[in-house]
Amino acid sequence: MELDDIQALRTSDGGSILLLVLDGLGGLPRKPGGPTELEAARTPNLDALAGTHDIGLHIPVAQGITPGSGPGHLSLFGYDPLKYRIGRGALEALGVEFDLRPGDVAIRANLCTADDQGRIVDRRAGRIPTEQAVPVCEALDQIEVPDARVFVRSVKEHRALIVVRTEQPSGARIADTDPGRDGAEPLPIVAADAESEPAARAMRLWMENVGTALAGETRANMVLLRGFSQLPSWPRFPDVFGLRSLAVAAYPMYRGVARLVGMNAIAVPEGPEHLVRALQQHGPGQDFVFLHVKATDKAGEDGDFDAKVAAIEAADVVVPDLLTAFPGVFVVTGDHSTPATMRSHSWHPVPFLIAGGSGRGGHGTDGFGERACRQGGLGTIRGCELMPLAMARAGRLSKFGA
Amino acid sequence: MELDDIQALRTSDGGSILLLVLDGLGGLPRKPGGPTELEAARTPNLDALAGTHDIGLHIPVAQGITPGSGPGHLSLFGYDPLKYRIGRGALEALGVEFDLRPGDVAIRANLCTADDQGRIVDRRAGRIPTEQAVPVCEALDQIEVPDARVFVRSVKEHRALIVVRTEQPSGARIADTDPGRDGAEPLPIVAADAESEPAARAMRLWMENVGTALAGETRANMVLLRGFSQLPSWPRFPDVFGLRSLAVAAYPMYRGVARLVGMNAIAVPEGPEHLVRALQQHGPGQDFVFLHVKATDKAGEDGDFDAKVAAIEAADVVVPDLLTAFPGVFVVTGDHSTPATMRSHSWHPVPFLIAGGSGRGGHGTDGFGERACRQGGLGTIRGCELMPLAMARAGRLSKFGA
Repeated sequence: MELDDIQALRTSDGGSILLLVLDGLGGLPRKPGGPTELEAARTPNLDALAGTHDIGLHIPVAQGITPGSGPGHLSLFGYDPLKYRIGRGALEALGVEFDLRPGDVAIRANLCTADDQGRIVDRRAGRIPTEQAVPVCEALDQIEVPDARVFVRSVKEHRALIVVRTEQPSGARIADTDPGRDGAEPLPIVAADAESEPAARAMRLWMENVGTALAGETRANMVLLRGFSQLPSWPRFPDVFGLRSLAVAAYPMYRGVARLVGMNAIAVPEGPEHLVRALQQHGPGQDFVFLHVKATDKAGEDGDFDAKVAAIEAADVVVPDLLTAFPGVFVVTGDHSTPATMRSHSWHPVPFLIAGGSGRGGHGTDGFGERACRQGGLGTIRGCELMPLAMARAGRLSKFGA
Repeated sequence: MELDDIQALRTSDGGSILLLVLDGLGGLPRKPGGPTELEAARTPNLDALAGTHDIGLHIPVAQGITPGSGPGHLSLFGYDPLKYRIGRGALEALGVEFDLRPGDVAIRANLCTADDQGRIVDRRAGRIPTEQAVPVCEALDQIEVPDARVFVRSVKEHRALIVVRTEQPSGARIADTDPGRDGAEPLPIVAADAESEPAARAMRLWMENVGTALAGETRANMVLLRGFSQLPSWPRFPDVFGLRSLAVAAYPMYRGVARLVGMNAIAVPEGPEHLVRALQQHGPGQDFVFLHVKATDKAGEDGDFDAKVAAIEAADVVVPDLLTAFPGVFVVTGDHSTPATMRSHSWHPVPFLIAGGSGRGGHGTDGFGERACRQGGLGTIRGCELMPLAMARAGRLSKFGA
């Protein structure tokens, strides 16, 4: 179902919805037949909810597809990530919380090493450490070009964000300059249409000054440009679903994705207790709150099975306080799986539970885990179907057709 | 799969298909973990079929979406209700069994109260009782306009159906005149394209005569127009599936939806025994018969759990007679859920069983109920996937590709 169909059906009032995302929640057993991280974790509060309410698995993007953080969260917000795609530059801007505006063009930039003929000899500048990359980016940020401002921000190691803000708003249909291999020169900056010419022209002028600005550098003395993209003009989450909406997250990327779809967002320190406090303080007056826990994903990426178990258990402890602070429909899930055994995001279906509102419930005593969810009453669904289900249970969707 | 794909694969003969729709069949437990209406009902015949044949759940429209009767039945007939949409006026026409023809424009009309400046003071004319609305609609039905006939039929209380039949067939891209609030005048009748001008012109002339026709009325003295729409020109069910098809229903709405897709339809009194008699009498010579039971939905809407249980049990009793009268593939399901606890249609998945033809079967002794169907061999599917499954089991679909 498309977002405009949902917007046509949604009511102007109803119950509240709390979405608790344990990033990378889904996992894998260490040995075949053994428990996953979630199954190994002692989670009495989530288990009790799973036994009396509804559980299932969701596929964030598509079978076999490993989601990045952006698509994983868009899916949970009800946006089909196959339809609503964010460019690489715009994603980098979200990740460093750059105030990207309509008409800006965001670019993922790689610092690189060129020889004195201008040929690339190392496309990642020897994976220059972040602390050495920061002054390089500051020097690049000083370059002035006519009729435009070109912002440069260090992201991590050789990776940087460039944002071009031209006097005339620009399109972003501009080809990558990264030749994709060492020994070649950077490709010229070419706009695919007239609308994208303002940013392309500004970046051509800017590139002419890079050599001078980085004259003292031997390693990071050139820049490759990729993923020219823009703030998408998508339907706003508060309008689609008719929800006053707030995101609470310690990491800028997750606040950024929430802001991208029009939610308000506030920063908190890491740790579930800070989510409780933020919910108590800022929840009143909201219809929808998204709470983000990073520790589960971080432990998975580190390959630390026990740390992921502990992160899940720490989140379980605060569940009663969350429900007291913000009663209504309660959704607990992840934006993707991050099995500790894989040390990375993965494509495996993600467990979810929905409590509150009308459901068939009664899943017994198997608790909240991947295998119990596979047998759960809601089956295996697409991630972007969770929001309509939560909306229905909150009494916020009217009948389709007479 | 699209209907034209199915039409390309369907054979010209094969077995028969009987579709028994227990309207609003799906339910919810009164208490978490307790039985639903269907689980509480004593249904030895359906249980026996569920144990030896195939069961599952279907989603009529989409996850979280509560279907109206029109979309719910279209889905069971194999028409994706997100693609095949009926306008509100056309649905009203089906509900009162008006003989809507191609080129007619159907309108959902509200009788309302206007003051002497023509401003709306009550958009529903004080919810005028039907018996008082009937003579008002008869007076409106007498209004004559050049080059067109404007039919007016009372539906219920302030709700009426208007059908404009112009000499030149008309389109229906005409905006609502309901201003959506009291204190405003009705909006003018504006066609969005030249094709819709004949009906718009006729209705403008018609509206000029409403004041005179209703001169004696103080309450229902004006009309608001909404949902201008037409008989859709969809692929016909008998052509798509290659089935001589008959609908048997006590209520006009369900015969109307069946006729909309090209089935023949006959009216019977309420009660499962009349379905048996109609099937014995009219079944021979048909390839497909759709039988509609309203009592299950009615009990659900009334919030009467026990009455819904009784209605399900009454339907179960006649199952052996139905199978004797019309052997072949047998599908039993609902067009949506109507849990008695909610007193309304709902979005919850609907149990179904398919008997006859080749299936894996063997679901044991849990009978026919929501939880058994959740664990059933056919899983959770879309409502519009049931017809292809029934066609396959009837030996009526050839291989896709060589």
